[in-house]
Amino acid sequence: MERPQAYAVEPWQLRETHLDRQLLARSESLFALSNGHLGLRGNLDEGDPHALPGTYLNSFYELRPLPYAEGGYSYPESGQTIVNVTDGKVIRLLVDDEPLDVRDGRLLHHERVLDLREGVLRRSLEWRSPAGRTVRVRSTRLVSLTHRSIAAIEYEVEAVDAPVRVIVQSELVANEALPGPMRDPRVSAVLRAPLVAELSHATGTGAMLMHITRESGLHLVAAMDHIVEGPPDLRCTSEAYEDLARTTMVCRLMPGQPLRLVKLLAYSWSEHRSRSALRDRVAAALEGARYEGWDGLRREQRNRLDAFWDDADVEVDGDAEVQQAVRIALFHVLQAGAQGRGRPIAAKGLTGPGYDGHVFWDTERFVLPVLTAIQPGAAAEALRWRHSTLGLAKERAATLGWSGAAFPWRTIRGQECSGYWPAGTAAVHIGADIADAVVRYVDATGDADFEREVGVDLLVETARLWASFGHYDRDGAFHLNGVTGPDEYTAIADDNVYTNLMAQRNLRAAADSVERHPERGETLDVRKEELVVWRAAATAMSIPYDPHLGVHPQVRGFTLRKEWDFAATRPGEYPLLMHFPYLDLYRTQVVKQADLVLAMHWCGDAFTAEDKARNFAYYEQRTARDSSLSACAQAVLAAEVGHLELAHDYIGEAVLMDLYDLHHNTRDGLHIASLAGAWLSLVAGLGGMRDHGGVLSFTPRLPRRIDRLAFSLLWHGLRLRVTVSAHEAVYSLRGNDNAGAELELRHHGEPLVLTTEASVTRPIPAAAPLTSEPAQPAGRRPAPRRLTAIPE
Amino acid sequence: MERPQAYAVEPWQLRETHLDRQLLARSESLFALSNGHLGLRGNLDEGDPHALPGTYLNSFYELRPLPYAEGGYSYPESGQTIVNVTDGKVIRLLVDDEPLDVRDGRLLHHERVLDLREGVLRRSLEWRSPAGRTVRVRSTRLVSLTHRSIAAIEYEVEAVDAPVRVIVQSELVANEALPGPMRDPRVSAVLRAPLVAELSHATGTGAMLMHITRESGLHLVAAMDHIVEGPPDLRCTSEAYEDLARTTMVCRLMPGQPLRLVKLLAYSWSEHRSRSALRDRVAAALEGARYEGWDGLRREQRNRLDAFWDDADVEVDGDAEVQQAVRIALFHVLQAGAQGRGRPIAAKGLTGPGYDGHVFWDTERFVLPVLTAIQPGAAAEALRWRHSTLGLAKERAATLGWSGAAFPWRTIRGQECSGYWPAGTAAVHIGADIADAVVRYVDATGDADFEREVGVDLLVETARLWASFGHYDRDGAFHLNGVTGPDEYTAIADDNVYTNLMAQRNLRAAADSVERHPERGETLDVRKEELVVWRAAATAMSIPYDPHLGVHPQVRGFTLRKEWDFAATRPGEYPLLMHFPYLDLYRTQVVKQADLVLAMHWCGDAFTAEDKARNFAYYEQRTARDSSLSACAQAVLAAEVGHLELAHDYIGEAVLMDLYDLHHNTRDGLHIASLAGAWLSLVAGLGGMRDHGGVLSFTPRLPRRIDRLAFSLLWHGLRLRVTVSAHEAVYSLRGNDNAGAELELRHHGEPLVLTTEASVTRPIPAAAPLTSEPAQPAGRRPAPRRLTAIPE
Repeated sequence: MERPQAYAVEPWQLRETHLDRQLLARSESLFALSNGHLGLRGNLDEGDPHALPGTYLNSFYELRPLPYAEGGYSYPESGQTIVNVTDGKVIRLLVDDEPLDVRDGRLLHHERVLDLREGVLRRSLEWRSPAGRTVRVRSTRLVSLTHRSIAAIEYEVEAVDAPVRVIVQSELVANEALPGPMRDPRVSAVLRAPLVAELSHATGTGAMLMHITRESGLHLVAAMDHIVEGPPDLRCTSEAYEDLARTTMVCRLMPGQPLRLVKLLAYSWSEHRSRSALRDRVAAALEGARYEGWDGLRREQRNRLDAFWDDADVEVDGDAEVQQAVRIALFHVLQAGAQGRGRPIAAKGLTGPGYDGHVFWDTERFVLPVLTAIQPGAAAEALRWRHSTLGLAKERAATLGWSGAAFPWRTIRGQECSGYWPAGTAAVHIGADIADAVVRYVDATGDADFEREVGVDLLVETARLWASFGHYDRDGAFHLNGVTGPDEYTAIADDNVYTNLMAQRNLRAAADSVERHPERGETLDVRKEELVVWRAAATAMSIPYDPHLGVHPQVRGFTLRKEWDFAATRPGEYPLLMHFPYLDLYRTQVVKQADLVLAMHWCGDAFTAEDKARNFAYYEQRTARDSSLSACAQAVLAAEVGHLELAHDYIGEAVLMDLYDLHHNTRDGLHIASLAGAWLSLVAGLGGMRDHGGVLSFTPRLPRRIDRLAFSLLWHGLRLRVTVSAHEAVYSLRGNDNAGAELELRHHGEPLVLTTEASVTRPIPAAAPLTSEPAQPAGRRPAPRRLTAIPE
Repeated sequence: MERPQAYAVEPWQLRETHLDRQLLARSESLFALSNGHLGLRGNLDEGDPHALPGTYLNSFYELRPLPYAEGGYSYPESGQTIVNVTDGKVIRLLVDDEPLDVRDGRLLHHERVLDLREGVLRRSLEWRSPAGRTVRVRSTRLVSLTHRSIAAIEYEVEAVDAPVRVIVQSELVANEALPGPMRDPRVSAVLRAPLVAELSHATGTGAMLMHITRESGLHLVAAMDHIVEGPPDLRCTSEAYEDLARTTMVCRLMPGQPLRLVKLLAYSWSEHRSRSALRDRVAAALEGARYEGWDGLRREQRNRLDAFWDDADVEVDGDAEVQQAVRIALFHVLQAGAQGRGRPIAAKGLTGPGYDGHVFWDTERFVLPVLTAIQPGAAAEALRWRHSTLGLAKERAATLGWSGAAFPWRTIRGQECSGYWPAGTAAVHIGADIADAVVRYVDATGDADFEREVGVDLLVETARLWASFGHYDRDGAFHLNGVTGPDEYTAIADDNVYTNLMAQRNLRAAADSVERHPERGETLDVRKEELVVWRAAATAMSIPYDPHLGVHPQVRGFTLRKEWDFAATRPGEYPLLMHFPYLDLYRTQVVKQADLVLAMHWCGDAFTAEDKARNFAYYEQRTARDSSLSACAQAVLAAEVGHLELAHDYIGEAVLMDLYDLHHNTRDGLHIASLAGAWLSLVAGLGGMRDHGGVLSFTPRLPRRIDRLAFSLLWHGLRLRVTVSAHEAVYSLRGNDNAGAELELRHHGEPLVLTTEASVTRPIPAAAPLTSEPAQPAGRRPAPRRLTAIPE
């Protein structure tokens, strides 16, 4: 685990001090700007060199066939893939006819800064052309967090030591060539040029391109306009073709004299709206942006982020890398969800094409709890998107022969797109994950409208699935057999503890919600007996336990399985799934990612402290951590069972996942769930925050190197701030207009009532772990962040 | 279950009394002629109409890519598909320029006969052309059981009531268009025209075509020659092109005057041999056939079949349909294996393109025990083929991370071609099936050379797999987890009883064989400790048992699973895999095909009589019988536990599988394993034949409707004939030259020593079933054959 030399450790920004071409792909992801609707990868202004050019619109996808060597009933025949839409980032510069390319001439200076408070990506460079002409370029890129269709780029070029003639070509480019061979010829056939030109036109300072996707039939309009300031001889013209629109600015610059332009970009797409409606909408968005102007857009962006950080900032004193990384993480989580408005939050947000742009369970499991705490409106929007796909999920359940709703394991639009059912359709826990996100959102916000409009439906239809999916054994225990839990190295197994505990909560929550909203229950045709059936199944839910070891097997029989031979596994053989057959992974005691440990976080009230300690130690020794979704959960449980230094190590891994590219795929986009997990590792880990049964509780405790941790969360409109130091925790509450508001919580088990009048300070009891610190499999220890590094 | 009206019930032939176009596809499979090297589907001489034109050479395949929506480590990237090679069956006839087509004009008579003693397909027809000219055509087709490269067709045409001018076009046709859309465009791209022309030439009365497969690079030569007798004005010319060679005969026929020709066909192919060697070989084969002449070929064929039936005939008095069907079954089993010579016996033999022409475990499990009993040389050849792929199987095991050999679930050439590992690679029992076939072959023949040359290697490398695959639990029991047993509605489960019992035998047999052939063991680097390891694992092998039910779960935990809702399953929803997801099939108590029941047949000595009765009743109620490999095993066990009438019903289903097209896919080829199972259902079922531990035993008992059953089997070169009637069984032995030979066997537990001098007669004790006759799931009862039909 190594920090790239080019990335400076600074509390409020990610600064790349020089251009390291090795980092190009990773930086494109880390420097991605997005508002949850529109995302631009951090490609260089001039387009080249690039790793992956990327411009994405949430849910704008193309269809592709899903092939099977041997097909089967209910296998999805068609997949959905996010499309790299018309690229409006491109601004090429020619200096006395020589194109600016960082690979040619001499790059005298190059710096990029992702400014987490301003919400912009700044770049400055000084370049000497092969012919010896030097220019300075500064650009500032912004994707508006307040105007969802709008992005803007301020671009300034200045001659340094001699007059130069500059040409700036600002473009819209559709169907950009994407690098890399796509192995399946049919996939590439579809996705090599997914956009079919429909219309284009240019005005004096801008242009518009309209396309439609070949298979999915989605319309897309991208438009640009420019505000240009330069010497009097400046000429500006625009032209538009099928897949290219270009505004060209040409002028001669004296040394010190700048050419400055602001490029305004607007995007719109639709499944249903008419082409003319789309065109008008884009024109209006551009006109609005022009009205706000560059300064206005910047100001709104800053205000939006000031408010965000005021609600959401996490302070970590003593570990500057973690401090920086958690803010980067929160910034990207905000970007992923800010303006989703009834669209999903994909695994990679809008930062890259990884996982085909699909959304998985990790949005509900990892991202929404964080958004619920710091941006509850965004959590609600993501769940409203799930709700909008409920019809498809019910159809899918019917196809599979089950009642209720079977949500897709991976999708963009709502249809199941998983081509491998043992790690797709079999992962039925996704229904309970969605239900759980509903429950926690409602608990945290008290948003009764949401519960009535969206929550009950989701809870009821997911509960119905469990009732039809499970069965009672001859002793009256209720089982969920043949499922895949969170750990993808075990599949199609019986009674996954995580799934069963989550389904248990799902069943009860559904019954409770119908009792709170009987009119909604009637609409859903829920009869009284159905509630009885759900509660009975919940009560009878079978939770396997190995009394011999005093450990919960993550699935029935797990602790009796063959052990994985970690000693014989070479470092280059991770991730294991790339080097060993599923067959062996599935039948051995090797864990890809926290599963039982995840259950102990989210269903922590179902375990005793002793079970937690033993379980954690047991699984710690068997977890390969081949998933980015593991370290954060391990951090949370390590802290809970008292291994705070180990928790710190895992926090480091969780929070630095993308910055240090620990899974070697940050190039394809950021791991949004893992970034959210960074917050969880600190707040639920070191802060010990839990909300079981709608009751907030904390068991804060710091590892030695971290002197102080402060974090906030929103609860029924109040902002709770918790500040933890080595020996005490301070809880303070900020009201909304509702004076005299109170908040009940628990501090290490002690009930507290907090008011907005005064903060409360409580001492922190010393940790008393029940086991010694467990070991990880050989070579799988997290990189140490603790004060005294332990010899590997 | 209905007999097609066109098929007459006759003891020694399958006669199609008239042409029913509905039966065209099925008849093509049933009338297929093959010698295990060359196979011709029963297409009409004139080529059209056809369902599937088919000419196959054992192991002549083309490669095609295997696509995956989501790939995985060790997934095979390339599949093998049997090729419809150059078609030499085609003989077109033009009557006064009108082509004979049974769809045009009037078909006054049409009859085809598959003669099981002659080994030929005869056809006779009388046809009136649309212009009113009538001809009589007789053809007799033969694929030589003694000359593996040779097929021959005698074709005779005769004018009936007026002189006609006839033109006969006898052809070789390559790359015939195959019907039906192939869904995967890449598959069809490869297989639409798999043969690339290399050379062709014609002589006066014949021609030759040479091709090579596009991807797999196999050379193929097909040649024909003709012996023609006709009126003096007969003209005969030949021509050859890339994909077509044609010999044309033209003459004028007076009423009653025949044109007779004998078409001789020779095929040869090779992976390695030079093109000129192949050409010479085909020329020599044709020359040899010409030397034998039509009469000579017919005589040899008859002699070969006389000898076969003398060794193999099964007589069933009282059920004429079963009598006919079992002879048809034996004929096709003989055809599939007769001249394999180190090539595999595919699931469909050489009767159709079903399953891509692949060979599966069912060859070793169902076909080889039958061949061992009636054609032991053919069994040895099939096992020699397995042995020839041992290197590939060891490579595959290494890829999977296991020791020893992992044989492919489906293949032609030896490489794994399964594109769905839960029902492919996970079915590790195939290794034990092969080992078992070795053991039973050696037990039955005493063929020590075979054991030394082939047997030890196969036993040792399969045993090594088990030792590395399994593990000991904390109580010292040995487990094989994460496997798929014979029943494909349960997959990736623990301790499949069939697999574990078979592996147990495999481990012990390997140790025994190394002790018998220590020098072979040294070559394989088997150390003493390895034998200890194998025997210990065998001894510790875990066999799950449900004491509450007194039943063996087919896999651990099976009897605790959810029950399949048979009552809610509609008749049109079978086979279930076409209408329900694997996910639900896998996690419920629904059985596609005999699994535990199969274990009770082949590992019957591991079960008590009480267990067998209870187990049979338990699984009988849960078996959907969606596989053609189920009824025969159910027949065997139904008989063993004393339900003889039910056994009779299952015998009917097994034996009539293809004749009545019970699985609606006989068009793609015959179910060779099920045809072998027909023999097993009678001999191991009603005859109660077992060979546990190399000891022959019988518990013959007949259902009421069958008056007499007689069957034979070869044992160490002796022919044992068993004749069973209601109250007694007669055992008689025929020696080879070895006078004074003895055979020990058991009749209903009583040890007998049989000599060639005298037969032994023993009474048959009455059946005393321990349970009442079990029911099948609703709608899944086999069609009744018993005397008194039971109301459905």
